[in-house]
Amino acid sequence: MDPVINTFGLEPMSSTVSGPNVAATLAQYVSPHGTRAFIITDAGVNGAGVVKPITDALTTAGMKWQVFDQVSPNPTDLNVVAGVAAINKFGLDGTVVVLIGGGSVMDCGKYIALAAPNGVDHVGLAFAPELDANDRIDFSTLAPKFSASKPGLPTIAIPTTSGTASETNGAGLITDTSDPAHHRKLLFVNPLLRPRTILLDPTLTVGMPAKGTAACGMDVLTHAIEAHTSVKSNPYGDALALHAIRLVAKYLPIAVKNGADLEARANMQIASHLAGRAFSSGPQLGMVHALGHPISGQLHQAHGQTLATMLPHVMRFNRDVVAERYANVGEALGTEVDPDAAIAAVEKLSATVGTNRKLSELGATSDNIGALTQDALRDLTILTTPRYPSRGEVHELYAKAL
Amino acid sequence: MDPVINTFGLEPMSSTVSGPNVAATLAQYVSPHGTRAFIITDAGVNGAGVVKPITDALTTAGMKWQVFDQVSPNPTDLNVVAGVAAINKFGLDGTVVVLIGGGSVMDCGKYIALAAPNGVDHVGLAFAPELDANDRIDFSTLAPKFSASKPGLPTIAIPTTSGTASETNGAGLITDTSDPAHHRKLLFVNPLLRPRTILLDPTLTVGMPAKGTAACGMDVLTHAIEAHTSVKSNPYGDALALHAIRLVAKYLPIAVKNGADLEARANMQIASHLAGRAFSSGPQLGMVHALGHPISGQLHQAHGQTLATMLPHVMRFNRDVVAERYANVGEALGTEVDPDAAIAAVEKLSATVGTNRKLSELGATSDNIGALTQDALRDLTILTTPRYPSRGEVHELYAKAL
Repeated sequence: MDPVINTFGLEPMSSTVSGPNVAATLAQYVSPHGTRAFIITDAGVNGAGVVKPITDALTTAGMKWQVFDQVSPNPTDLNVVAGVAAINKFGLDGTVVVLIGGGSVMDCGKYIALAAPNGVDHVGLAFAPELDANDRIDFSTLAPKFSASKPGLPTIAIPTTSGTASETNGAGLITDTSDPAHHRKLLFVNPLLRPRTILLDPTLTVGMPAKGTAACGMDVLTHAIEAHTSVKSNPYGDALALHAIRLVAKYLPIAVKNGADLEARANMQIASHLAGRAFSSGPQLGMVHALGHPISGQLHQAHGQTLATMLPHVMRFNRDVVAERYANVGEALGTEVDPDAAIAAVEKLSATVGTNRKLSELGATSDNIGALTQDALRDLTILTTPRYPSRGEVHELYAKAL
Repeated sequence: MDPVINTFGLEPMSSTVSGPNVAATLAQYVSPHGTRAFIITDAGVNGAGVVKPITDALTTAGMKWQVFDQVSPNPTDLNVVAGVAAINKFGLDGTVVVLIGGGSVMDCGKYIALAAPNGVDHVGLAFAPELDANDRIDFSTLAPKFSASKPGLPTIAIPTTSGTASETNGAGLITDTSDPAHHRKLLFVNPLLRPRTILLDPTLTVGMPAKGTAACGMDVLTHAIEAHTSVKSNPYGDALALHAIRLVAKYLPIAVKNGADLEARANMQIASHLAGRAFSSGPQLGMVHALGHPISGQLHQAHGQTLATMLPHVMRFNRDVVAERYANVGEALGTEVDPDAAIAAVEKLSATVGTNRKLSELGATSDNIGALTQDALRDLTILTTPRYPSRGEVHELYAKAL
């Protein structure tokens, strides 16, 4: 049952500029915020030649810059240490942090932008909550160990994947590797880290392989579905989420099949951005993310793939409490206005793009389920899921996905 | 045919707070921008008792305020004179302009907020373009007679109707009455006039009579359709526009039938706001507005009704160039994914809510069509219409609507 009268607030978003080759105009967006650009990326993006045209344009504009490309997939506290050291060496005064990459780069880069001016090079600015006796988040354990007294450096985002939409908010996830036996992904949030300008240049996404394109696309779909069914959904987010779903249904199979199709790439980039604006406008996410994060953190799998694996199972679990919302999802996916048709369409799309992989294919056995469940219950994205699960129910969802 | 790869930019929007009784929290949104509130409204809204609870809350908060309620429907240069005199008497220093009303109040209030600090009390800050030899806007005549060298006073918007969405932008229309024989509506635009905060309080809209509710609702529908079919449409605007159409289809008939239904009122208010964000994000409007403005300006009709009268005729005129987009409109209206079904559904909705009135019922005869056509061609909203009309075509559209 939908809330009859929604009470919500919408805050101003970043500026977004979208179009082929807009990344080359970076310098003009750095200038309002600083005089020098510290570019955070990863070795894959840098090696693919994506960064050089952008830094060439900065050089032409007479702007000092440096590239740090040591961000790993599912970035860790070790990446933070390296990045903070590098940016301190470059100097913080007048520096704008430019994020060129996918979600890992965005998340890690935002954290570095906050950590460096606060003299921090660990994950102590992130939340690491524990559970109460009912397996719910214990809010008395929520406060991060360290708090940021200074604002982060201004950031600008240039996404090279169409998935996490990390460019639309000031949050991210860093994997804490301090316990080698149990890597845990920790959420950080700071509204001032939201990129001041977002440059959506679809030409930067054409080089992504089909497998990554598919996984990222399922991330977009999950953002949209979770924003629309969140306990904190709002009509603005609904509008953007449902349109993102329409774009995914139309363009994801094309982008996976033919990565050079710029129309499909551009529309997937926009779908990702709209879904990000949707969940970042208040709704946040839900249990697909809560269950996905431990799989990528502990088993080192691609974030989008972990969501694709868990999404149908979570949808079946949520079905009865958000049936009307799932019916909208069905319509947006181009099938019937019906919750079960929606779930079937999600499974069909996942099969079409090749992300219909079981949890066991991601390296899990039944031995992993206990630790995955523990971290899923401690994941803050669970707070806005429409049907709050018990420990046993999370365990069962992982078991079904195995 | 849709543009394959859309190039567009999105600027940050205002803060919006939505929910029953949020208008009573006004003081906290004035404080960041000033110390005193000059409230602009109209006699109808003021007489209905809508303003008093809000000013009572300001008094409780210890904030100085004054009410100016001399804005007429389709506000004129005479309202501007009176409003500028009143706000100058109140004093500009530390003053925030609070707009409580429908589109007329919002438009007039924004203009006063710009005019007063610029020492202007006429409509010379608005555009009054003439036509070139091809009956297109002559851009050499576009510049307003006077330019604003100072920013306008900060504004805050509290809409009491669900129609114009004037709260979402820094533009508006003022009727120039200097030629008694030919009243012309003039557009002004200043991005800094966009309200800093928008308070969407559905309880303020329950008192609106059915006729006004219906006309305003058709304004919402027209905003959404024109945003989606503009030559400057973008996917963000598409998302918001299509969702606004879905909300109008579901809730407008209910709001018209039972004005006390707060769920329907709240959803129409949100639909109006989303459609406003859609067209204000870049697409602007189109020929329904270009043809409607002269009817309200010259014949003193309600803006929304003039749009309802012209909408189906303009849709038939545009049909072939935006067939795919109209098919989306059809789907959002709950009928077939088909352009003709969309036009039929618009006509059916208009009949259901009682706005299916001919131009002759709005006081026009064939004698009026020449002057209406002249102003329609000079209306700046025509610039983004998907099929640019000739003078003869505009004439014919009015004749068909007669």
